[in-house]
Amino acid sequence: MKEFELIRKYFSERGPKRKDVVLGVGDDAALTRVPQDKLLVVATDTMVENTHFFPDASPRSIGHRCLAVNLSDFAAMGAEPAWASVAITLPTSDEKWVEEFSNGLFEVAEYFNVQIIGGDTTQGPLTVTVCLKGFVPENKALIRSGAKSGDWIYVTGSLGDSALTVASKLNKINVKAEHLEQAQRKFNYPVARLAAGQVLRHAATSAIDISDGLIQDLSHILNASNVSAEIDVANLPISQAVLDSLDEDSAIEMALIGGEDYELLFTVPEEQKGYLEQNATAMGVPFTCIGQVRGGDSGICLVKSGQKYPLPNLNGYQHFSSEEN
Amino acid sequence: MKEFELIRKYFSERGPKRKDVVLGVGDDAALTRVPQDKLLVVATDTMVENTHFFPDASPRSIGHRCLAVNLSDFAAMGAEPAWASVAITLPTSDEKWVEEFSNGLFEVAEYFNVQIIGGDTTQGPLTVTVCLKGFVPENKALIRSGAKSGDWIYVTGSLGDSALTVASKLNKINVKAEHLEQAQRKFNYPVARLAAGQVLRHAATSAIDISDGLIQDLSHILNASNVSAEIDVANLPISQAVLDSLDEDSAIEMALIGGEDYELLFTVPEEQKGYLEQNATAMGVPFTCIGQVRGGDSGICLVKSGQKYPLPNLNGYQHFSSEEN
Repeated sequence: MKEFELIRKYFSERGPKRKDVVLGVGDDAALTRVPQDKLLVVATDTMVENTHFFPDASPRSIGHRCLAVNLSDFAAMGAEPAWASVAITLPTSDEKWVEEFSNGLFEVAEYFNVQIIGGDTTQGPLTVTVCLKGFVPENKALIRSGAKSGDWIYVTGSLGDSALTVASKLNKINVKAEHLEQAQRKFNYPVARLAAGQVLRHAATSAIDISDGLIQDLSHILNASNVSAEIDVANLPISQAVLDSLDEDSAIEMALIGGEDYELLFTVPEEQKGYLEQNATAMGVPFTCIGQVRGGDSGICLVKSGQKYPLPNLNGYQHFSSEEN
Repeated sequence: MKEFELIRKYFSERGPKRKDVVLGVGDDAALTRVPQDKLLVVATDTMVENTHFFPDASPRSIGHRCLAVNLSDFAAMGAEPAWASVAITLPTSDEKWVEEFSNGLFEVAEYFNVQIIGGDTTQGPLTVTVCLKGFVPENKALIRSGAKSGDWIYVTGSLGDSALTVASKLNKINVKAEHLEQAQRKFNYPVARLAAGQVLRHAATSAIDISDGLIQDLSHILNASNVSAEIDVANLPISQAVLDSLDEDSAIEMALIGGEDYELLFTVPEEQKGYLEQNATAMGVPFTCIGQVRGGDSGICLVKSGQKYPLPNLNGYQHFSSEEN
């Protein structure tokens, strides 16, 4: 099957058709309409074989994740997604692969009403880049630089499942079958916290999604906001699978430095805590207070039962990869 | 040097700063403002080592081309570029490579006032995906589907230099040094015909940029417009380097099927020919009438001195790769 037919069959005629798309896949560029009084929001993430997924990863999972990680960036901005461009580099014109990949992609696209408006298909080592576009009302975007001393630090959902999946895959940790299945589901089919992001537009002073790990992503907020933070590791919402598979200190470490959980990390001033609690249902996901923003630029201080707790070693951990919008 | 520092040094603090960018590189997503009464235009192109450039290609050329090919899509839409997201996958964190790549990228970005608003940097085989965003006034975009029987078919600039460069590199053709230098410049540092695209908004019924080769890109217009075409190969603006390096029939073939010239191919109704001639200077590039649109769906008919001329064999030519916006 020729490339043009492959694209038409699996990408041009599938998924949501939005009224704000004037011209979709098939011309030199796509044309869309941005609502008045809204800003355009743009996020870009690349996934590369052997860096972001294992060579035996299912194409459906790759299709799901490449859109979900961009949607997670949108959640962290309090933004509403609308259109995506999908650039796929494939070693061979493998119709079965494209079909399963597109199934994973469109499951997410349909759920969040995102129209695929274009992209590119090229030959080479397996790589997928998605550029997601959408909107946010003027002055309502959640950015990294708004955290203030005294704000409470929250995280959605639970932490560590994706790192546990990777560690298990690399035979570093034995994980019980029922735990592994749940952890793998979170790694392979992450769900962007878009509803939570919408609620947080009215409550949070800053937000980021946890792609590189709690410590590293919290550092981004602290650096951008010129503040420091105290985190009580006893309050971390560590996933049950991680707690049951590791000793306590190792579980805490995994929750602190494990990436790819795509939960939201955000800061809320004292006077907005009530709003947050009142809108707990609308958040669509549990959330946990894990610490507080402090003044100064002394970085992250960990405590446990009122005692200092050592920072895990991040050396050698920083991906060359990261999410840089 | 760590990735975040690399990005800050070479991408965050360089190039044009546009007033319509509310938030650029460095958060979960970028925020920009689209003018009222204009549509958002989005194009995406990926370049992969060994598919789109040779392993010894200069990083500056790769940086130039990855933006230029997207700008060429914008030219073919009559659109005005504004912001680009740049996703780079690199085997190693090679600062020298990133510096030269960014020099090539920002030369083009500065010339056309494009701000880099984000992207991603990942580890893996060398691949670059640029997603370009910009505007076009409502109902003014040049699309592929507007060609009508009787319209004249034009092409800007000259054809074949890029194919000649590739053929010379593969030792298939001997090219004189002075010709080779000029042909290589066109291949390595293509210039998008943006000024021409702006003029054509008022004159052309359809347009496309020549990335896959004249025959193939003309076919896209004909298929989208449900028309056919007659091309007089004697009128093709074949580059002097190609004419001097090949016999006549081979030169014609190279002009017909050689890709990557990034000239514009467009159709103009009889009544707009005068407008086009009057605005020849504003086009910023010479242009040549090479044939005429015909009714029906009989594809492309080539003629020379009033005689039928054989269509070159495209078998095995279609890239797996293509520009699909």
